[in-house]
Amino acid sequence: MNPVPLIIAKRDGERLAPEAIAGLVAAYTASEVPDYQMAAWLMAAFLRGLDAAETAALTRAMLHSGEVLDLSDLPGVKVDKHSTGGVGDKVSLILAPLVAACGVPVPMISGRGLGHTGGTLDKLEAIPGFRTDLSIRDYRDVLARVGCVMIGQTEEIAPADKKLYALRDVTGTVESIPLIAASIMSKKLAEGIDALVLDVKAGRGAVMKDEADARRLAETLGDIGRAFGKPTEALLTAMDAPLGRAVGNWSETAEATRVLRGETPAGGPVPDLLEVTLALAGEMLHLGGAARSPEEGRAQARHYLDAGLAFEKWVELVEVQGGDLAVLDDPDAREGSAPVAEIRAPDGAAGYVAGIDALALGWASVALGAGRRRKEDAVDPTAGFVLNKTVGDAVEPGAVLATAYAADPSRLDAEAVRGAFRFGPEPPPATSRLLGRYDGTRWGGIGRPRALH
Amino acid sequence: MNPVPLIIAKRDGERLAPEAIAGLVAAYTASEVPDYQMAAWLMAAFLRGLDAAETAALTRAMLHSGEVLDLSDLPGVKVDKHSTGGVGDKVSLILAPLVAACGVPVPMISGRGLGHTGGTLDKLEAIPGFRTDLSIRDYRDVLARVGCVMIGQTEEIAPADKKLYALRDVTGTVESIPLIAASIMSKKLAEGIDALVLDVKAGRGAVMKDEADARRLAETLGDIGRAFGKPTEALLTAMDAPLGRAVGNWSETAEATRVLRGETPAGGPVPDLLEVTLALAGEMLHLGGAARSPEEGRAQARHYLDAGLAFEKWVELVEVQGGDLAVLDDPDAREGSAPVAEIRAPDGAAGYVAGIDALALGWASVALGAGRRRKEDAVDPTAGFVLNKTVGDAVEPGAVLATAYAADPSRLDAEAVRGAFRFGPEPPPATSRLLGRYDGTRWGGIGRPRALH
Repeated sequence: MNPVPLIIAKRDGERLAPEAIAGLVAAYTASEVPDYQMAAWLMAAFLRGLDAAETAALTRAMLHSGEVLDLSDLPGVKVDKHSTGGVGDKVSLILAPLVAACGVPVPMISGRGLGHTGGTLDKLEAIPGFRTDLSIRDYRDVLARVGCVMIGQTEEIAPADKKLYALRDVTGTVESIPLIAASIMSKKLAEGIDALVLDVKAGRGAVMKDEADARRLAETLGDIGRAFGKPTEALLTAMDAPLGRAVGNWSETAEATRVLRGETPAGGPVPDLLEVTLALAGEMLHLGGAARSPEEGRAQARHYLDAGLAFEKWVELVEVQGGDLAVLDDPDAREGSAPVAEIRAPDGAAGYVAGIDALALGWASVALGAGRRRKEDAVDPTAGFVLNKTVGDAVEPGAVLATAYAADPSRLDAEAVRGAFRFGPEPPPATSRLLGRYDGTRWGGIGRPRALH
Repeated sequence: MNPVPLIIAKRDGERLAPEAIAGLVAAYTASEVPDYQMAAWLMAAFLRGLDAAETAALTRAMLHSGEVLDLSDLPGVKVDKHSTGGVGDKVSLILAPLVAACGVPVPMISGRGLGHTGGTLDKLEAIPGFRTDLSIRDYRDVLARVGCVMIGQTEEIAPADKKLYALRDVTGTVESIPLIAASIMSKKLAEGIDALVLDVKAGRGAVMKDEADARRLAETLGDIGRAFGKPTEALLTAMDAPLGRAVGNWSETAEATRVLRGETPAGGPVPDLLEVTLALAGEMLHLGGAARSPEEGRAQARHYLDAGLAFEKWVELVEVQGGDLAVLDDPDAREGSAPVAEIRAPDGAAGYVAGIDALALGWASVALGAGRRRKEDAVDPTAGFVLNKTVGDAVEPGAVLATAYAADPSRLDAEAVRGAFRFGPEPPPATSRLLGRYDGTRWGGIGRPRALH
């Protein structure tokens, strides 16, 4: 095929036929179209945009570039959750066992940390022995036995997305809503799910800094889900400050485990993390047919969490995927979980924590070893922070703001952590993390007042 | 270097620093930046544009990617002409010897046919024995001895342009005014010229179909020339119908030779070709210091042409570059110059020729063998047409509209040639080919009424 007419058409703002997009992606995946032509097309698509039909066609082409799992022989409505990524976002670790405990199967394929944001796979692998590289057969078996499973993307799933993502990463074509949406949905639709809940994050620590962009991404994701006949609901959630108090792989896994155990995590309570997790669980239980409404699902999830049933499911999942159960019983027992430094409030800090810059803290945790600068880098599973003070807490000079954990404490940039905190004389207004809900057709509230805590 | 920040900056419509553009082009030429990243940058530049400073920086980077000739030891103000390309544009073949005969040295480096438009090199090589592949040393020697020289682009000149042009050709990034302008000017400025006259063509048979685009290209070219301290004047000329009556390599060279000899070319008189050639000659003589104004230059050129001095210079040039002089004395004596077909007016054609579609005729001549479909193709030097009827001529059914020449007459698409003619009951209004003149600062007329013949 000659891709030049398609490059020119997109460059000139024309709408491409679905077959044209399918042909282009197939030829690129087969290396019949070279990277330089695909790069030109991607930049044209970035700047001219792709409409709903084009985005669905791109998703379909990437989805069918590899294996599309079929879980229809397993009972239940399989529901997954996808987050667009943030700082301190350990929601999946609580959500998957929680929703599974409530009887809705959760087949979850996750990614690694990217840029300043963390990744679920890295958090799971902070549990000694936990294997995320299950075969497709084991993936099905674990899902059937446990009711949930958490693995990484396999080579068989959406190879076109893998190839296109690598090209976008080096050609300045990452931050395009239709390209991001098609990439996410091609992988999720290949998992064999029946329905999907999205956590689209907006704010300084999110990929989408701007709320309007995040709303457009949520709509685009929902539109694709609908085009493929998979009910898709999106929550828009705030990602200006880190979610919860832990940032870093083991810190976050420990925090999730404490929440599942009904204990107060290191640093203090995490109402924001619970709020987001329960709202997502409510949507999943509703889509999975276990609740008549998201509100009912949320109440049910709260009940199962409080009763310890989600923690039991978590133990079951970790055990079957090879993880060390001892660290679930006592997260502080994990090797490397002793703090290496405390970051204290500066002299001028009196009053309250007015804000914490999730982006700055995310990069500080990457610098400490929790993330990768290049994709070949290994992560330090113990590297991270726990916030002893979070937004709204009273603070005085010299108070401990955060505690650092790391195999190599020399990588700590304490100034960057301190600089991520903003202080004010008054407590900031209490706000909810839940900014909106898109049901595939229109935006609405989340059945709870915006001002929460 | 990491080009991604430059790709992103241009994608987001930012202005790049000259050093950034220089670094990018140098790294690309050295193959340190891969094609796919340059392709993404080119598409971003295509869609976001490059301002005057960026375009000058790109020109400079390409210019200095190879050898920059220095002709300053040769006497005189060296002036070249560049045309953006059209159908039947054999102006250079008359202009170079004409301006040289008037005492202004003309170092001319030309290209081959591209798409539906012809190229000066192919026309020169239609003269048996004519060599266009002179070394840089021979280029200087011929210029010094004859006062003009006509060769093709060497490997040493602007290799970055060659590499970038090849990439643009396969990534849908050709038709960008700043990219076109930088490509043209990097090659011209490398020739060692002191001043430049541009023939920017607008209309159906031109690269720029739209007159507003052609004006912007002329301005951009003029701005670059000024940025490099080389006086640059641009004429905007009409390219809806072919220029003159000959289309095809030898047909055009024969027509140019007839004009230089003061004879009427095959098919009939060519006032439009003379009008454009003399206007360009006037500008060159003015810039070269041989005339006090373009108008005076034009009158001087007319005088030298009529006196046969330009033809003498043409003979001198062809001889020193190895061409067969016999075909200059009698163009009909060249092998393959016998007509192979006549295209006649259809039954309904009564009245006058209202227009001739240069684009359609250009492609018909490519099909006949005068141009290349792929760059490896060889051209048939004899393939082409002579228009027996041109715009404004009276016509009746069955009259000969055009005569075809070719080594392989089976490639003639007579219907396409006939279809290029439009007829009308009245003679069309007489118009000038000269649409405007840009002196590097502002647009003006060309010192002659617009309605001419």
